[in-house]
Amino acid sequence: MKKEYNVAVVGATGAVGTRMLEQLAQSTLPVASVKALASKRSAGKTVKFAEKELVIEELTENSFTDIDIALFSAGGSVSAKYAPYAVKAGAVVVDNTSYFRQNPDVPLVVPEVNPHALDAHNGIIACPNCSTIQMMIALEPIRRVYGLKRVIVSTYQAIGGAGNRAMDEAREQLKEVLNNNIDPTELKAEILPSAGDKKHYPIAFNALAQIDVFTDNDYTYEEMKMTHETKKIMEDDNIAVSATCVRVPVLIGHSESVYIETEKVADIDEVKRLISEFPGAILEDDVAHQIYPQAINSVGRRETFVGRIRRDLDQENGIHLWCVSDNLLKGAAWNSVQIAETLHERGLVRPTAALKFELK
Amino acid sequence: MKKEYNVAVVGATGAVGTRMLEQLAQSTLPVASVKALASKRSAGKTVKFAEKELVIEELTENSFTDIDIALFSAGGSVSAKYAPYAVKAGAVVVDNTSYFRQNPDVPLVVPEVNPHALDAHNGIIACPNCSTIQMMIALEPIRRVYGLKRVIVSTYQAIGGAGNRAMDEAREQLKEVLNNNIDPTELKAEILPSAGDKKHYPIAFNALAQIDVFTDNDYTYEEMKMTHETKKIMEDDNIAVSATCVRVPVLIGHSESVYIETEKVADIDEVKRLISEFPGAILEDDVAHQIYPQAINSVGRRETFVGRIRRDLDQENGIHLWCVSDNLLKGAAWNSVQIAETLHERGLVRPTAALKFELK
Repeated sequence: MKKEYNVAVVGATGAVGTRMLEQLAQSTLPVASVKALASKRSAGKTVKFAEKELVIEELTENSFTDIDIALFSAGGSVSAKYAPYAVKAGAVVVDNTSYFRQNPDVPLVVPEVNPHALDAHNGIIACPNCSTIQMMIALEPIRRVYGLKRVIVSTYQAIGGAGNRAMDEAREQLKEVLNNNIDPTELKAEILPSAGDKKHYPIAFNALAQIDVFTDNDYTYEEMKMTHETKKIMEDDNIAVSATCVRVPVLIGHSESVYIETEKVADIDEVKRLISEFPGAILEDDVAHQIYPQAINSVGRRETFVGRIRRDLDQENGIHLWCVSDNLLKGAAWNSVQIAETLHERGLVRPTAALKFELK
Repeated sequence: MKKEYNVAVVGATGAVGTRMLEQLAQSTLPVASVKALASKRSAGKTVKFAEKELVIEELTENSFTDIDIALFSAGGSVSAKYAPYAVKAGAVVVDNTSYFRQNPDVPLVVPEVNPHALDAHNGIIACPNCSTIQMMIALEPIRRVYGLKRVIVSTYQAIGGAGNRAMDEAREQLKEVLNNNIDPTELKAEILPSAGDKKHYPIAFNALAQIDVFTDNDYTYEEMKMTHETKKIMEDDNIAVSATCVRVPVLIGHSESVYIETEKVADIDEVKRLISEFPGAILEDDVAHQIYPQAINSVGRRETFVGRIRRDLDQENGIHLWCVSDNLLKGAAWNSVQIAETLHERGLVRPTAALKFELK
């Protein structure tokens, strides 16, 4: 095992990529070098890493020579094509896209929740969806003691999850309404609710009950990610999860209204204690003093904030809670870097012998 | 029964009061005269009613002589004090505040849902909370056919529900961030989450999991309104309702993510048909074409828009839906005027013989 790693960041110019570099610069991972990779369009530009400026190189099949760890956040199709080449070149890939998440050969990891899943990796580790990660941090301490039967979650997701362009568009829309008195229904929209879908709607002063495109069962892919990823991370297909994923006019910081039913009836004070002691979780729950998690306070923080914990008014084993996290950090960049740190701590940064992923 | 009514609007300068005048001008109610009442501070100012300017008079105990219908929307303490005087003077009161809603002598009415409750009125009829009304429109057509056992609702409530000052403050906060690059955590806040509570937080780029103040059970009053009012309007104390009420940076138009369990397993296509045929409801549910209700499209409309209707992934009798309505119209001003119209249609605009409410 090497002492220091050569790290590549794929998608280094994006909202998540720039934060991966920032988190990497602050991480405990021993880093020898960082290579910033992006599309041809961005090649030659520079990005910041610690005090240095990195010149962006074009991503190709040959970008991963001598790379030990490759962090991917440039879209599912980029990961689909290039992650296997990185593995073939001897790197371990931490992929922030959804492409490999349900692949049985790929661990799906929130380091505080299921770090053991890393042990069996085959060169690619998937970082879960932003909306799933923070919910796992909130629910895992409860699940470990009381068991978890079902989850009903409604999200209040920030625009940042759709990237820098979506945030720019939202700011422009808001300015049009506030400074030029444009009616929100008259605003131009080109990105949200989903860049890949046909119609686009304004997010300014709106709430969009669509994130990602719809699946055949009338849930969106974003909603189904929460269902499938929860089962995989918690290693229990019997946990029932139904989600409603909604974009709100918040730039950074996802909030979630989560209802759960536990197997054993929980003591609410004990639930609060368990959450307060769980790594990566911060309990903010003192309604007598109006203390509860808020999106604007989560920005730039690595933790998930949990509050408004209370028993359902009728269901004895039902609990409601409110959890908030920086979707670009714990929801993406930090969780990915944290996976790399955990791989290092567990001695798992090493080339993979037999390639399990198709080279396209 | 008179042919035309003298109508008073109490709180005529507020976000709801001005819309009550607007809805009244468009209503089928035969109106002889309109008296605009407000606090001493506003007396002498003018408000619009149809093509006329009304001079605001100061609200006193003697304001209701010759008034047939009084619409109140000036806060609970104003209704508590003055609504009984209006009834004593021979008026029928439609009260938009929460003060009388749980009073057993006061019907709590959504005209499409429980107009029969008006028949036994004692001079005061309560208009339910904005967040409850639109949920009733979405759920009543389902309840009538399949029964309703439980409701879990997470709201995405607009700032307008907290009044004109709250909307002004939100606009100022957003401008500070967008035009002057102020960090949202540094913004000044004086109104939200609840004008009557101690601490105030910015709503710009935030989601506040507090509306109204907290009760002893760690739910807010806003959340408990949804619980109590649902049971009263649907005349069934066995319906389990737990709510999480959240303010989002939307000016007008409440959205709600609603999960219900019905007594009988419902057919989803039939549920959509029932909603599409229910008065006051508009079905917007065609996810293949990205059609679902949006807050910005609800502004200025009297209807409640319902979509994203789908079965829970695990619970056979579980249904998720998304409903949106203009919280200042159906949620307040229009529902109040509509109650007055319904009173007229049912021949119920008449003085009350025995006063059931304390004069303070």
